Amino acid sequence: MVDTPNADEVGPLSVRAACADAAWRPVTRASTHELVIDAIEDQIMSGTLTVGDLLPPERELAARLQVSRAGVREAIRVLEGHGVLRSDVGSGRGAGTFVAALPSAALERFLRLHVALSNFRIQEVVEARIMLEQASAALAAERADADALAELERLLAVMDDPEVSREAFNDADTAFHVAIARAGGNSLFSDMTGAIRGSLRVPILAAFTKVTDWETMVQSLRAQHRGILEAISSGQPEEARRRTAEHIRSASAALPDMPEA
Amino acid sequence: MVDTPNADEVGPLSVRAACADAAWRPVTRASTHELVIDAIEDQIMSGTLTVGDLLPPERELAARLQVSRAGVREAIRVLEGHGVLRSDVGSGRGAGTFVAALPSAALERFLRLHVALSNFRIQEVVEARIMLEQASAALAAERADADALAELERLLAVMDDPEVSREAFNDADTAFHVAIARAGGNSLFSDMTGAIRGSLRVPILAAFTKVTDWETMVQSLRAQHRGILEAISSGQPEEARRRTAEHIRSASAALPDMPEA
Repeated sequence: MVDTPNADEVGPLSVRAACADAAWRPVTRASTHELVIDAIEDQIMSGTLTVGDLLPPERELAARLQVSRAGVREAIRVLEGHGVLRSDVGSGRGAGTFVAALPSAALERFLRLHVALSNFRIQEVVEARIMLEQASAALAAERADADALAELERLLAVMDDPEVSREAFNDADTAFHVAIARAGGNSLFSDMTGAIRGSLRVPILAAFTKVTDWETMVQSLRAQHRGILEAISSGQPEEARRRTAEHIRSASAALPDMPEA
Repeated sequence: MVDTPNADEVGPLSVRAACADAAWRPVTRASTHELVIDAIEDQIMSGTLTVGDLLPPERELAARLQVSRAGVREAIRVLEGHGVLRSDVGSGRGAGTFVAALPSAALERFLRLHVALSNFRIQEVVEARIMLEQASAALAAERADADALAELERLLAVMDDPEVSREAFNDADTAFHVAIARAGGNSLFSDMTGAIRGSLRVPILAAFTKVTDWETMVQSLRAQHRGILEAISSGQPEEARRRTAEHIRSASAALPDMPEA
């Protein structure tokens, strides 16, 4: 976490610099909400708090940690942002803040923002995507069950529709790649793949809208997707790996303004 | 984002259910801080806000978005948690909230928490780790420069120290694997590798402390690390890939309570 002491949130845990001498700088301390995050993280890391557990009420947590309620609430927001807590509204049973298991949406938002800010170069993202999806496709060829294959078929049918818009095509395309990762049975891998493909959704859609010969482009994408699904459903991991890498490379190269990996 | 309307933070954007009829439930709306997050995200996605840009002051942002200052601050905390914003303290020039590029620590905390909560099974994490690090090691064999190789040598020397504690060994071990990923030159990949290895730091250290024949264990880890570095420094991607997978599999199998991938 970044160290962000907070001037107008001075609780018992903070320190005021009491000396005017320039050599005396305020002691660097985590701000209130970071101390609360650390306290909650400690409980999670030690196994005291597990998924489904209810946090103590905001007021009680503030009193126990001797911090402001605003600090507690900010900490809760951060951990909600990570998909680790979830707040249910109301005053009856079932209301309150629970320990949650919601990593996917949080990871996708995280990557989408950092990709948009170019904190990762788009070329790195495409390269990472190729490596992850190669491995995912190989796993899927070993492990995909009938339901997973049916879902992949359904998504190809959406993209096969001659009337499909570029946006609907892009959505089904994203879903197809995420479904392959899910078919591999590793949820961390499928969340990362989904987040990376999701973070590229806007740049890929922007590139789609610039394609002049959309019909040719889309036919080649359909054939490549079909080839990947065939390798997966016939249980050929190495072929699934090879076709996936080839597909992502050639699609990136064919799209205006997308980097070649 | 999770949908968490917030009863005591009713701003102009919120809705109160005005009817007692049970069929009338409150309209589901994003809570204040989520609307602020969305507003900031929109600016980032459209390129209006880029790294280094200063956000408007909290008060001004609250007025422009017609929400409470608490809502603005909570949104800022969430985006700080993602490493997308950074707040500098003080009242002079340089104070304020900036758009930042700090993905690594945020990603590591995220994965560490979700691994601790078993939202990803440790077996999945080890499997994901093998796939990522295989690819990283192969990239490093193609791209590592002299500085990267020197850093890897330095970390092996730390682990070679006969007096090294299990904790210091674990830290240098983590750093070695992250440095290989960094040597591959893809920052998204090295952040993910670092975050995954970092999320396993506590369980691996716990397993280390239970090893009865530490000398034998540590000698085999040293030999495996040395073998990986040799494959990288002699530019053999396939060998680097093979030795990395073998190392992670055999180390996981040798550690008490760690799953075999």
